Amino acid sequence: MSNPIPTAPPSGFRDHMPDACELRARAIETISRVYRARGFQQIATSAVEDLAVLLGKGGGENEKLIFKIMKRGEKLSPERVGALLGDPTRPNIDYREIADQLADLGLRFDLTLPLARFYSKYGSTLPRPFKAFNIGPVWRAERTQKGRYREFYQCDVDIVGTDAWAAEVEVISAIVAAFQAFGLSDVEVVLNDRTLVYEAMRLAGIPDDKHAAACIIIDKLDKIGIDKVRDELKDAVGHDETAHLQQTLLSQSGAFAGEQLERLNSVINGVRKATGHSGLRIDPSLMRGFDYYTGAVFEFRHPSFKGSIGGGGRYDKLTEKFGGPQTPACGGSIGFERLLDILSQRSDARSRAGKRVCLLIQSEEMRGYMLDIAQRLLRANIPDLVVDVYPGEVKARMDIQSKYAKNSGAHFSLIAGPDEANSDLIRRHDISNGDEKVLPFDDLAASLRAD
Amino acid sequence: MSNPIPTAPPSGFRDHMPDACELRARAIETISRVYRARGFQQIATSAVEDLAVLLGKGGGENEKLIFKIMKRGEKLSPERVGALLGDPTRPNIDYREIADQLADLGLRFDLTLPLARFYSKYGSTLPRPFKAFNIGPVWRAERTQKGRYREFYQCDVDIVGTDAWAAEVEVISAIVAAFQAFGLSDVEVVLNDRTLVYEAMRLAGIPDDKHAAACIIIDKLDKIGIDKVRDELKDAVGHDETAHLQQTLLSQSGAFAGEQLERLNSVINGVRKATGHSGLRIDPSLMRGFDYYTGAVFEFRHPSFKGSIGGGGRYDKLTEKFGGPQTPACGGSIGFERLLDILSQRSDARSRAGKRVCLLIQSEEMRGYMLDIAQRLLRANIPDLVVDVYPGEVKARMDIQSKYAKNSGAHFSLIAGPDEANSDLIRRHDISNGDEKVLPFDDLAASLRAD
Repeated sequence: MSNPIPTAPPSGFRDHMPDACELRARAIETISRVYRARGFQQIATSAVEDLAVLLGKGGGENEKLIFKIMKRGEKLSPERVGALLGDPTRPNIDYREIADQLADLGLRFDLTLPLARFYSKYGSTLPRPFKAFNIGPVWRAERTQKGRYREFYQCDVDIVGTDAWAAEVEVISAIVAAFQAFGLSDVEVVLNDRTLVYEAMRLAGIPDDKHAAACIIIDKLDKIGIDKVRDELKDAVGHDETAHLQQTLLSQSGAFAGEQLERLNSVINGVRKATGHSGLRIDPSLMRGFDYYTGAVFEFRHPSFKGSIGGGGRYDKLTEKFGGPQTPACGGSIGFERLLDILSQRSDARSRAGKRVCLLIQSEEMRGYMLDIAQRLLRANIPDLVVDVYPGEVKARMDIQSKYAKNSGAHFSLIAGPDEANSDLIRRHDISNGDEKVLPFDDLAASLRAD
Repeated sequence: MSNPIPTAPPSGFRDHMPDACELRARAIETISRVYRARGFQQIATSAVEDLAVLLGKGGGENEKLIFKIMKRGEKLSPERVGALLGDPTRPNIDYREIADQLADLGLRFDLTLPLARFYSKYGSTLPRPFKAFNIGPVWRAERTQKGRYREFYQCDVDIVGTDAWAAEVEVISAIVAAFQAFGLSDVEVVLNDRTLVYEAMRLAGIPDDKHAAACIIIDKLDKIGIDKVRDELKDAVGHDETAHLQQTLLSQSGAFAGEQLERLNSVINGVRKATGHSGLRIDPSLMRGFDYYTGAVFEFRHPSFKGSIGGGGRYDKLTEKFGGPQTPACGGSIGFERLLDILSQRSDARSRAGKRVCLLIQSEEMRGYMLDIAQRLLRANIPDLVVDVYPGEVKARMDIQSKYAKNSGAHFSLIAGPDEANSDLIRRHDISNGDEKVLPFDDLAASLRAD
């Protein structure tokens, strides 16, 4: 009669199976540990924000990304909805606008805007500068396509309240150190300063009102190549100006933009000192997509992945929209889902840290003995040991219990009958090769610890 | 001109400051570790579900709890909205229903329904029985009031695919063990079996169609007391029936409901064996609110908290709504926000595990030396050491840097001038008492490790 209820998550959303979950949980713990060890303090903001916060004053491009949440209860009463609609017979009713007014909340689409709200509210009670990290899901109503999800994690690290380049050093170092903690020592850090590009444009005689368009073209360098960028620039800003701009941007040394270059080089040297990581370079074409960056921008790349696996920059005006004083800030983020793609392709992705044993129940009388063994194993402080007691019917034939042990990934199954129990012994069955041994408890514990 | 953009989270939602975040993160790690060590495997489902999943066939009480997400893009075009509205001049337009049709997704309000969907989709590829845990936020559009949040965490542990009472033992034991891991050994576990109450009602001559109403009254015992419950029952099911029911429920032993009582006692004995925890008892008035429970129900209480700090039960019919075969299941959950209330009142809540040092920068030339010291400290494998480098302007006067160190919770500030650097020394300032010492690096590291 009615449509069947779907068992898949909504399009663009994902469920995570145990192996993936464990990898994700371990990765989040590692990143948190690295950020925390470098003096960043964890904050968390609500997943749901007022639409006014998400839309800002202008709305703009972000609006399309937002999952909007409908008003509830009285706010959605027939009277209220009817009032919103107005006179339903009038011509040219803007139904879209009416629908918009039925929503009052939305899911956050990044962690930067919530940080700006957070700092605007609590900044006066926080250390200044404030070193913060925030790890959590964000939601974007993007077109679904391979590798693009509508729910994904971000791992942001930010320093709010200083325009010192030391903040760039700390932010980039924390992210580099996180990658190092995963054994990814071959990450390349690419840096630029947007004001350097603006200054080059001014030197090339490109008027200010064309800078934004030119930036968007320059940012496509990776995707379309230098020739097409040059062609598009010529159309947008003129032939001579393009030639001049290219020359200026390529001659990084000398008279042009000395201050910005000195600053970028200080950042690079600082990160090298702070992490021992050497793979950093300036790329004058790097712009990063977001329009809120005001100075330094940076990106993290890895040979196994086309595109970036992290990025960030300086955004000195973000808290302005909340009406407070201008607050300088610098932040970066790890592309968590891309990092997981890299980690899950490694051979050690599925290996669990410790041993897993499954206790089988030969007969109902043996349950007490086996629960006791489980309890003693759990208290033996064996690192990462998993002690799984078969949770089903004991009347289940032993081959069903053995299949459960195998399917749940156990290395050993443990079993005992009355004779073994009377002598405080356990039969240990090695699932990988079928070996069986009857052992006293202490020997069993020692064997699980040693392996 | 325009309204200011709010800096507070929406009503009923929360931001979390660093101390609270650290407590939350540590609690989640502890619960995950305990669940995992007992053989439960972590799964994660999407925060967003199809409305059809959340509403089920009936809709009903849950509908009011759901934060509904509006359709997007083409689905919300003026034409589509106009078509939903129909002829706007017809009488008695149900605006509420029209508004309802503008939403297609919603935020999950618990983790049990998503588990049922998950198991309906992937069950055939999973071990059977399947021991799962899922920790994450859920959202409920409840009236905001003290201690009630619209976004809060649940920590669910479930066993799907068996009706054996061994599942109840494993689920309750995992939750008891989690409480034990927080030092909460004085948790009381209260159990009942709903079918036991139904059987008592049948014996008392209460017709089946009055059982649900009677259950709701009995469940209020904690809140309104035995006399009022008796009065309400008399009105609902009759005087003699109430007296009979009370007598039957109080006489737990004997002929009545022997099977259920034996089963509950087996569960109690099993949990005692598996955890060493003795505080378990049967309460024949315990019903738990959710209507999906079909057998055992249980609740966790703590002397410092009125009401439960966790609960669960057996729900053998939950996967039915997804059209699959009937799948027995048993699950429970920790009241995470209530647990945190208890933990945050303890004296050790704010104590960090390790030492925090803040490296101050005397002058720009000293930055390289200090970054190097930071790097060496981070690599010295000192447990839980936090190494914070002052991230602001070096031109900042030293008293500003010292204030930063104090405000960020550092135990020591570290500083060096050219003379110290030349001799590989660091000046260590104890923020709690002002003591200063000039130390070689190894002595510094040893002092941070020992303290």
